[in-house]
Amino acid sequence: MHEKKYDLVSDSRDSRYLTLRSLQTQQGRSKTGCYIIEGIRHLARAVEARSAIHSIFVDPSVLSNHYGQKLARKLRRQGVPGVRLSHHLYHALSVANEPQGIGAVLRQEWVPLKGLNVPHNSLWLAIESIESPGNLGTILRTSEASGVSGIFVLVDECDPHDPAAVRASMGSLFSQQLIRCSVHEFITWAKSKDVSIVASTPVGLMNYKDLHYRWPMVLALGREKRGLSEQLLDAAHFTVRIPMHGLCDSLNIAVAAGVLLFEMSSQRRWNGSARERVV
Amino acid sequence: MHEKKYDLVSDSRDSRYLTLRSLQTQQGRSKTGCYIIEGIRHLARAVEARSAIHSIFVDPSVLSNHYGQKLARKLRRQGVPGVRLSHHLYHALSVANEPQGIGAVLRQEWVPLKGLNVPHNSLWLAIESIESPGNLGTILRTSEASGVSGIFVLVDECDPHDPAAVRASMGSLFSQQLIRCSVHEFITWAKSKDVSIVASTPVGLMNYKDLHYRWPMVLALGREKRGLSEQLLDAAHFTVRIPMHGLCDSLNIAVAAGVLLFEMSSQRRWNGSARERVV
Repeated sequence: MHEKKYDLVSDSRDSRYLTLRSLQTQQGRSKTGCYIIEGIRHLARAVEARSAIHSIFVDPSVLSNHYGQKLARKLRRQGVPGVRLSHHLYHALSVANEPQGIGAVLRQEWVPLKGLNVPHNSLWLAIESIESPGNLGTILRTSEASGVSGIFVLVDECDPHDPAAVRASMGSLFSQQLIRCSVHEFITWAKSKDVSIVASTPVGLMNYKDLHYRWPMVLALGREKRGLSEQLLDAAHFTVRIPMHGLCDSLNIAVAAGVLLFEMSSQRRWNGSARERVV
Repeated sequence: MHEKKYDLVSDSRDSRYLTLRSLQTQQGRSKTGCYIIEGIRHLARAVEARSAIHSIFVDPSVLSNHYGQKLARKLRRQGVPGVRLSHHLYHALSVANEPQGIGAVLRQEWVPLKGLNVPHNSLWLAIESIESPGNLGTILRTSEASGVSGIFVLVDECDPHDPAAVRASMGSLFSQQLIRCSVHEFITWAKSKDVSIVASTPVGLMNYKDLHYRWPMVLALGREKRGLSEQLLDAAHFTVRIPMHGLCDSLNIAVAAGVLLFEMSSQRRWNGSARERVV
């Protein structure tokens, strides 16, 4: 097989470099429908999850890890486009604490609302804005771990493809179904599929532990400070709260998501309908 | 009452400023036994929790919030020492995204192991190093919210007074009992008080949901990557795991702490021995 090295880009005005830079902004990401990932572990997870890899970029002076080099070679042989970046440009682009010298541009994959398959015992998550992308990424990771079927992203400013969200998701972004729609479309979907909406709020009527959840269901999670919108609270079949001890009035939103999703997932297990993965 | 304004410090070589700067390093914190907090909400929580306030620092050009100004005045009248920092110095000191112009130096308050009161149904947490101070702070917040009686910090490099930990704890640092001791001292304490040790590990023998916890108990939580030490695993009465779905092999450590502590706290509730706070 003919092996041709990737072009070296060392000029910061090179359009290929400018495109990479633009993907660090939400504007650049929505314009192109792409996003950027960094590091060997993330790229390996993306390949494993058969994500749509648009191109890769490497800094050969940093990419010393054998497995990383092998991965880059494999992708190049498969015909994935790419560039080599000069050390200076890679360094300016990277947001990693310890850059590993490899990254990729991936196409965002949003699942259309209409095509969703809704198993009778499925658990879903709907997010009505999360202010911190790190928390959002952690929630994606927790969702996969607790067996969530898909995540509804209900507002534009909530971007799961933000570099900090991608990093915190630890690869779960690649294997999760993401659905972007309006709150209205989401409520209509839930009604039409008979999916019960459970909204989490500090003033929820039920302790989240006391509710016998009805399947299929979707957990609606609100903004860190302002909580869920009236529209979503009105549409919810149940509102639940996590009881607080001490002087606390709330949990970190990613922790709250974990507490709720694992309780829900566990109830499903007792119904005999979900499988724990056997390692 | 005589009101005297705090001295203005505008020279970066002023010893009072240098002391403040030193508290941003773990070395400076262990040398002085103090730490630094920032922002109106944190300071108000520290006052509410009767924390030992050593001194305060303000930037009058930024402190425009009425409640913050009142708080500063109140503390000054109570005889709390303080300085006014020039805008330049305050800005260089602050790690806040949007500095509010007020902060304080607090004395670290560690509870001695020997004096601990151990109610028969109490829940404790032991941390054997957490790499990210943000995660550590989030765990402190979650601990208070789930009704933990106190937190054992078992290794030196784990610093709950790191500015990022303080910020993420959202004030819970001020109202929690913190105990610093060695792993050996901790195990001896648990045995002598008949406190059961439950260790969390990805290869735990029991699903955390299936264990009927024995009180009083302490959850031992390990490092993000390396897990718990052999010494602690050997001493544990039970090891538990959180079941994983999908391709995930782990949760974020702060999320894992939340999932486990709220399950434990809930079992205690069913024993009729813990109270949910009524807001």
